[in-house]
Amino acid sequence: MLIVFTGNGKGKTTAALGCAMRALGQGKRVLMIQFIKGNWESGEQKFLKRFSGCARSREARKIYDLRFKIIPAGKGFVGISGDKIPLSVHKKAAENALKLAKKSIFSKKWDLIILDEINVAADLKLIKASEVLKIIKSAPKGIDIILTGRSAPKIFIKYADLVTEMKEIKHPFQKGAPAKIGIEF
Amino acid sequence: MLIVFTGNGKGKTTAALGCAMRALGQGKRVLMIQFIKGNWESGEQKFLKRFSGCARSREARKIYDLRFKIIPAGKGFVGISGDKIPLSVHKKAAENALKLAKKSIFSKKWDLIILDEINVAADLKLIKASEVLKIIKSAPKGIDIILTGRSAPKIFIKYADLVTEMKEIKHPFQKGAPAKIGIEF
Repeated sequence: MLIVFTGNGKGKTTAALGCAMRALGQGKRVLMIQFIKGNWESGEQKFLKRFSGCARSREARKIYDLRFKIIPAGKGFVGISGDKIPLSVHKKAAENALKLAKKSIFSKKWDLIILDEINVAADLKLIKASEVLKIIKSAPKGIDIILTGRSAPKIFIKYADLVTEMKEIKHPFQKGAPAKIGIEF
Repeated sequence: MLIVFTGNGKGKTTAALGCAMRALGQGKRVLMIQFIKGNWESGEQKFLKRFSGCARSREARKIYDLRFKIIPAGKGFVGISGDKIPLSVHKKAAENALKLAKKSIFSKKWDLIILDEINVAADLKLIKASEVLKIIKSAPKGIDIILTGRSAPKIFIKYADLVTEMKEIKHPFQKGAPAKIGIEF
């Protein structure tokens, strides 16, 4: 099943994380690859540490680590305030993330794979949308894939089973409020 | 901070659960009260059991139980297939859920309170939207509240800091596919 969460509103990555929570609850194994966000520690990563850290033994911890993993593969936000990384570096990072996604999809180690912000990476032409879709189309049966990020390429929407547009009606950033810990990250 | 996730698309409750995951990661305490869904075991409830169950000791489990709680207060879906419960019973359940919400908001035991499907309960007039807003307006400072459900009353949207409309672009139910374990529940 292919799910796309797109649109300019808040709730795309969080909805994917909510799916992750449900899937984990049902005993499934969840991998999230972050295509855009960089190597900083977000609420979900801290959560993962707690979740994995509360395992009774090294053995149990191993099992938790196999159940839920977040890999920050991106190089931070592209082209917005403070981004001094050349586009070629962003491109390389996104290409490597896609390679990792492909490997993970075919590894059969995961029941749900979240490709976070991949819509943006494709929209910015860091990776080819057609290349992404080719990988998804050849994915083993039974695997669920969620694509998040604004400006989802049309070919993703056309192929997907479920698409929700998260539309911004109101956002505190509009009034200049800072990002809030535990809500925005 | 008041957040509203509304609209006819998938991702409202899941986005709230994603916020819960982030908040838990940041060490916050999260309560979810379900206004419409009944007493059946969803992915998030199973997850909670695992999360709490993996605590090392009874003492640790107590701490986990204090950190994340889901209370199914509703009586199942209202007025759709298979609903044989009289409206008065739905109303009573929603009113009790609101009482519980009020008590929880003022208890200062929670940093994030999710009132799941409360928009629907208000839209169906099971509870008064103005009553809900009155409670929210008088909430202690620093508490975050998320309201989910389609057809959010306008007064919720007007007062909220952040509102996202989850708009259905495509859904497998359109083609008659059944709900999927670990994704839909």
